[in-house]
Amino acid sequence: MQLIDGKAISEQIKKEIAARVEEIVANGGKRPHLAAILVGHDGGSETYVAAKVKACEVCGFKSSLIRFEVDVTEEELLSKVDELNRDADVDGFIVQLPLPKHISEQKVIEAIDYRKDVDGFHPINVGRLSIGLPCYVSATPNGILELLKRYQIETQGKKCVILGRSNIVGKPMAALMMRKSYPGDATVTVCHSHSKDLIKECREADILIAAMGQPNFVKADMVKEGAVVIDVGTTRVPDATRKSGFKLTGDVKFDEVSPKCSFITPVPGGVGPMTIVSLMMNTLLAGEKKIYQ
Amino acid sequence: MQLIDGKAISEQIKKEIAARVEEIVANGGKRPHLAAILVGHDGGSETYVAAKVKACEVCGFKSSLIRFEVDVTEEELLSKVDELNRDADVDGFIVQLPLPKHISEQKVIEAIDYRKDVDGFHPINVGRLSIGLPCYVSATPNGILELLKRYQIETQGKKCVILGRSNIVGKPMAALMMRKSYPGDATVTVCHSHSKDLIKECREADILIAAMGQPNFVKADMVKEGAVVIDVGTTRVPDATRKSGFKLTGDVKFDEVSPKCSFITPVPGGVGPMTIVSLMMNTLLAGEKKIYQ
Repeated sequence: MQLIDGKAISEQIKKEIAARVEEIVANGGKRPHLAAILVGHDGGSETYVAAKVKACEVCGFKSSLIRFEVDVTEEELLSKVDELNRDADVDGFIVQLPLPKHISEQKVIEAIDYRKDVDGFHPINVGRLSIGLPCYVSATPNGILELLKRYQIETQGKKCVILGRSNIVGKPMAALMMRKSYPGDATVTVCHSHSKDLIKECREADILIAAMGQPNFVKADMVKEGAVVIDVGTTRVPDATRKSGFKLTGDVKFDEVSPKCSFITPVPGGVGPMTIVSLMMNTLLAGEKKIYQ
Repeated sequence: MQLIDGKAISEQIKKEIAARVEEIVANGGKRPHLAAILVGHDGGSETYVAAKVKACEVCGFKSSLIRFEVDVTEEELLSKVDELNRDADVDGFIVQLPLPKHISEQKVIEAIDYRKDVDGFHPINVGRLSIGLPCYVSATPNGILELLKRYQIETQGKKCVILGRSNIVGKPMAALMMRKSYPGDATVTVCHSHSKDLIKECREADILIAAMGQPNFVKADMVKEGAVVIDVGTTRVPDATRKSGFKLTGDVKFDEVSPKCSFITPVPGGVGPMTIVSLMMNTLLAGEKKIYQ
């Protein structure tokens, strides 16, 4: 069993990005600039945004954090989105989700210029992903692809089972794994809460991607000997023995599943660190105008 | 075994659409208007466009056919697309594919206002389909959904295997069958030319949708007893005994597969007649501004 070290890979990629940024700047180019809009003071969102700002520093990006109080109107928020769309210095930006209930997340997402949508949530980027055109791929699927690549895991013709059909993980992951390129070209099955033969499907998977958000859902008897297991789950399970009061828990019962695997991602330290670095990869693409002019 | 009669269903739907159109017009509303651009004189394209124009007549739609010779420039074509985008009388329009090689199909597709893209090929419609937002669904998947609905075929939790991953059938069909609504909510597997366990996957399918374009590919031993089989294939296989010189042949070896099925679509007369009627359904939606304002 080989552990997929998302933490180490993510550090490595940040170094590669930083080197590329210095090269760009040395050649008289513009330092890529990522902006983030944060509404309110949700603990999780604060943590994520802080981590993104820090990753920008490590990568040598310029970053801007725009804060609104939780009572910001949809109109004010959309007006800021419009401003960032038109700001030539901003290469890409994100609006940290979730947003307060009085604001339509979908409306905000669709207001973002798709050419600056480094989160890859705009319908144009989602559509282009499905069609197989260059686009911004959303962070988690993008990070998983990168892990498969860096560990040179074979995917062609393999049976890839994805647990979960969310818009940000399951569905794009399925589209990517069925593409005619590497990593991809797999036989893809998407299972979810209504799947009748979920356990049987899991047992047949060469590559199992668990993204249901159900802690310890995948047990040893659900995994084939030699399978590659990617654990996307990051549920905060209460744990009084920890200072934080919780333990970040994956969808896979790691202790019993890992001995059967050829490769497996741990939680934490697997897919998690890759999501932020995916955003950095997209920001570099945006800065270099590699996807859209 | 019950035969899914796409021809009868498509006639029925056209009658329903015609009745609705007369209701709209009687209430002082505007008759829906579909325009089609046809470049060159390809036999298949001529046939399809003629069938679409005829279906418009039956539905009570206004239709316009705009012809260009095969040497039309991309610029001229894009200029016509732009004109139709701005023509308030045109509710929806299509550009018949394929286009001559000197014209970028993708560029033309993306130039169409997505609100008039009744073929459902624009990345915004593809993306919205994946996300689960209202959109124009492309003709073949839309027609298959309608057949499943009209025959009240259960889909929730079923194993649905799709053979083929094309942008116009396999991929959107997968996205639709995994949606949290009916018809959908199935466990979806997409197989293709590189799938190693294609036969095994097929044998486990409760619903098998064959869209590979390989005549008679699906044999009896690949189908589970009681399965629902949807045959999307329409390959012209040479046949000297016919006046046309060919026989329209499905991806399923009908004679041997059909006795095992609970439901099956024939070729011709199954999915085929539904594709044009799907375009009519989208045109009605466009005329009534049901998807976009």
